[in-house]
Amino acid sequence: MLFRWSAVLFGAAVAVPALAQEPLSLRDLGSLSIGGRTIELSGKPVREVKSGDGGAAVKLDPNGQYQVEQLYVQFYLPKDRHGTVPLLFWPDAGLTGQSFETTPDGRTGWQAYFLHRGWDVYLSDPVGQGRAGWGPVPETGGEPVFATLAASFERYRIGAGPGSWDSDPLKRKLQPGTQFPADAFAAFARETGPRWTATGAATFAAYTALVDKVCPCAILAHGDAGATAFRVAQTRPDKIRALVAIEPTGGGDPDKAAALKGVPLLLVYGDFIDKDALWSQARAAVVAFAQQIRDAGGTREVIDLPKSGVLGNSHLMMMDNNNLQVAGLIQDWLAERGLYQ
Amino acid sequence: MLFRWSAVLFGAAVAVPALAQEPLSLRDLGSLSIGGRTIELSGKPVREVKSGDGGAAVKLDPNGQYQVEQLYVQFYLPKDRHGTVPLLFWPDAGLTGQSFETTPDGRTGWQAYFLHRGWDVYLSDPVGQGRAGWGPVPETGGEPVFATLAASFERYRIGAGPGSWDSDPLKRKLQPGTQFPADAFAAFARETGPRWTATGAATFAAYTALVDKVCPCAILAHGDAGATAFRVAQTRPDKIRALVAIEPTGGGDPDKAAALKGVPLLLVYGDFIDKDALWSQARAAVVAFAQQIRDAGGTREVIDLPKSGVLGNSHLMMMDNNNLQVAGLIQDWLAERGLYQ
Repeated sequence: MLFRWSAVLFGAAVAVPALAQEPLSLRDLGSLSIGGRTIELSGKPVREVKSGDGGAAVKLDPNGQYQVEQLYVQFYLPKDRHGTVPLLFWPDAGLTGQSFETTPDGRTGWQAYFLHRGWDVYLSDPVGQGRAGWGPVPETGGEPVFATLAASFERYRIGAGPGSWDSDPLKRKLQPGTQFPADAFAAFARETGPRWTATGAATFAAYTALVDKVCPCAILAHGDAGATAFRVAQTRPDKIRALVAIEPTGGGDPDKAAALKGVPLLLVYGDFIDKDALWSQARAAVVAFAQQIRDAGGTREVIDLPKSGVLGNSHLMMMDNNNLQVAGLIQDWLAERGLYQ
Repeated sequence: MLFRWSAVLFGAAVAVPALAQEPLSLRDLGSLSIGGRTIELSGKPVREVKSGDGGAAVKLDPNGQYQVEQLYVQFYLPKDRHGTVPLLFWPDAGLTGQSFETTPDGRTGWQAYFLHRGWDVYLSDPVGQGRAGWGPVPETGGEPVFATLAASFERYRIGAGPGSWDSDPLKRKLQPGTQFPADAFAAFARETGPRWTATGAATFAAYTALVDKVCPCAILAHGDAGATAFRVAQTRPDKIRALVAIEPTGGGDPDKAAALKGVPLLLVYGDFIDKDALWSQARAAVVAFAQQIRDAGGTREVIDLPKSGVLGNSHLMMMDNNNLQVAGLIQDWLAERGLYQ
């Protein structure tokens, strides 16, 4: 427990350099798609599709094969490598790899932070999100579910609970002392997409395929991706050198908690959770799951930011004003696990 | 130490393309979202959303505000800059910025090619595509239209016309001498998403906002984005130092052809167009539009690859086996326009 305080007091103080001014030398960059399956639709009627843009109507036969349920992954490989394994970023449901790039108000994000520190960085878009694409519904993915601006504002703990949203920015009730750049909320909203009701199994399969391709690795998973990461790590524990779960929304398979006893695990929590029923519930479930890991002989560490004196963080701590301070704590923890040289 | 050897082996065998290049030094990289609008839904019933993943059903009130119709843009800024203006990549409908990244079979794409030559590169995802996200339908975007694998195979001129597709790769009829890496067709299919029936006006508005933000610039636009680029350039001709249109599917506003007389324009065409009714039609429309520009005192140049002895190119020439040869022709043309030093 002590190291967390020292990380706050000393590690974080040196962890906020002027990143944008220093050139970044990469030995390679690129992207790939991985996982998924082919589905076939048949017996569906040919229909006429009318263009709302003034084009002619065309007949469309939807029957045939489609490639669906893949992941999209961008990789950035620094010339001077200091992370001993690649660092994989798994975004929350409804978000993409963009959540780790430039913040909505234009500051340096975690992608650039960890790249400048010499980690091989892999940013993914989950199944059904962003450049991972999506296929015919309801045959794949189930149903897309869009969050209103009000729901996002509250869910991510930017606003101070139910009723905090107002379409007039001046009338919104922010969490007191929020670190989220609230003036850029509209810019953040441009990053969000729908969640899906039935992508769980496909997401698990695709991320497992990614781990099989690029790991051993460390994984940094946000929100819903944390729950996925627990389960993937349970099936590939030898491939995961560290798992950092940012406010995971659930634990892994309770019957396989022992599989994680050799996987270093860090849980990171922001502020305002105690007063939020849903987030309190999610945290309690994860803490219970982590206790099962400990009971099986494993370990887990927790950075509870407000308890460490770091106040005001939302669920979107990679975008918060103190995002590089939080990144510094994670960097220190990874280094203490022997994954940085 | 075993894991470090594995990481080294991975790096050598998988992540680094065969055409490994010099390290790339960037003065900055990041992303932004731009454009779009807020819509409000009202009077819609609250409905129950059932999770197909085993979670509990939840009540969903869809009424409220949504942020929609933005672009997503990634930027990569080389330390040693040789392009005198940024180079913007605008993907075809149904594709994203990924189309200019690593090719489906893992070779260097146009993003890396032009970055290594010292261009500031801006890769965008069009409205409704990839990380640009999409909003509630039909209130925004109209209707998503998915292409079957067969339709993609034919439309992009990988297959030799109607009936060329077969679910068995060995039975597919390829265009004779195709440059497309046909063994990676499934990997390419993972890059594709739906087109939309009503995103034309929003796409025009968002790309105009992008031009206002980052130009003067050169634009490289693919397929449907070429038609958009003509219209954007017609409203901002002073901002566009060069426009490279890769097989555009249509011309600009015929009443404003004269607006483009000062904009250097290059049209690039691949192979097999003569035998393809739709592509022949699109080319004829664009050639007619380009003639209007010339009649108004402007210029246009055409690289017709097969006429230049470069055979076998599909509509996806940025992914074709000779993609860097085609990129070299574009690079030379941009340099001849005085945009490279």
